[in-house]
Amino acid sequence: MPEELASLDAVAAIERFSLAVVEAVAGIVPAVKPQIACFERYGAEGIGCYHRVVAAAREAGLIVIADVKRGDIGSSAAHYAAAYLGAKGGPDAITVSGYFGADGLAPFIDAARDAGKGIFVLVRTSNPSAKDIQDFSDVRGKLFFERMAAAVAEIGDAEGLVGQAGYSCVGAVVGATYPDEARTLRKLMPRQLFLVPGYGAQGASANDCAASFDQTGRGAIVNASRSVIYAFADQQYA
Amino acid sequence: MPEELASLDAVAAIERFSLAVVEAVAGIVPAVKPQIACFERYGAEGIGCYHRVVAAAREAGLIVIADVKRGDIGSSAAHYAAAYLGAKGGPDAITVSGYFGADGLAPFIDAARDAGKGIFVLVRTSNPSAKDIQDFSDVRGKLFFERMAAAVAEIGDAEGLVGQAGYSCVGAVVGATYPDEARTLRKLMPRQLFLVPGYGAQGASANDCAASFDQTGRGAIVNASRSVIYAFADQQYA
Repeated sequence: MPEELASLDAVAAIERFSLAVVEAVAGIVPAVKPQIACFERYGAEGIGCYHRVVAAAREAGLIVIADVKRGDIGSSAAHYAAAYLGAKGGPDAITVSGYFGADGLAPFIDAARDAGKGIFVLVRTSNPSAKDIQDFSDVRGKLFFERMAAAVAEIGDAEGLVGQAGYSCVGAVVGATYPDEARTLRKLMPRQLFLVPGYGAQGASANDCAASFDQTGRGAIVNASRSVIYAFADQQYA
Repeated sequence: MPEELASLDAVAAIERFSLAVVEAVAGIVPAVKPQIACFERYGAEGIGCYHRVVAAAREAGLIVIADVKRGDIGSSAAHYAAAYLGAKGGPDAITVSGYFGADGLAPFIDAARDAGKGIFVLVRTSNPSAKDIQDFSDVRGKLFFERMAAAVAEIGDAEGLVGQAGYSCVGAVVGATYPDEARTLRKLMPRQLFLVPGYGAQGASANDCAASFDQTGRGAIVNASRSVIYAFADQQYA
């Protein structure tokens, strides 16, 4: 946080900071991906602030991807879907967990389709220990995250979910920190938009990110969060 | 919802209902597992209500397992951990996603250990399509959720995490709807407390749940949510 916010209480400082980031990036980048955990930490007040920041970003013309990573059995997923993917206001898309499979994703997909919004299912995450879990391998050397990708492609390419540009409203999170995997995943999910975290603070380069785009040079959105919002601390941008 | 709550606004009705459930079950059951999605649907107001219900349940002497199923890379997981596993107040335990692996779980585990609380990692969920994703199988027929279980056991049995009763503060969610899998998982995770959803509304029987207990007849907590909180609608309990 910049020093001039030090005198505010935490949520007020976060709100001032977040709205300043929105103002700084509007018109320069197409989308923002606010991480709800940073807000949720402060309970109801933090969540209220999150929803206000999302609304301000949308008003500023930004696409808002709410990074909430929610997921549950269908009956609970329906409540999360109502919270974030309703037709009136709220973010344009959210990140979700695919661990529950098709019936856990269905309420999110139904809500996204009805509201003209989208979801990004966690397929390959960008953190170092992702591979310990997600690289579990079957008899033919197929990896678990490839199974998740196949499920996302199958579920996301159903009737009514693919738009005029050829992309599904069901996208995938594919960490830029694993470019070889991203190439494989691009083949498995030709109609998925990729949300690509890992650029910047987590170490991936622009070259690493290129693997997530499709043959037309589209189909991915690269996310740089910490390297942008903490740029004030860098002498050259201060 | 009972008819007499129909005139209240949604959050007020949910709060009145939840507090009545807490009052009804306190002294009869050891623990409650409030599902945050039902509250989060109503934004900041709903989250405020959630935290009040958690506090009321703790005051009533109940162990509170916050069913939040959060999970993210470490830097974000640390914020979720601060939200729910702080030493002052809040729930006694939370459910978390294990998809990110060890570094995504670490902040939750550190916070739980420091506060004398616990986490339950999603290993085998209780919903019908769980198996489409979680039964992905390796060359020796080992299933993906067994890999997740092995990771939970390995991570959870580290020094300082196993208490005097022989159980780790890192437990596992193991759906009662798959009793054969529960028997396998009990062997893979001897020191994990199992949180067992699926009894009641989701179709599992008491017999199905027995598979999750260990040889001493302990080590599991069976969760019946909808069959208890909606009992008012059943003629015999009305």
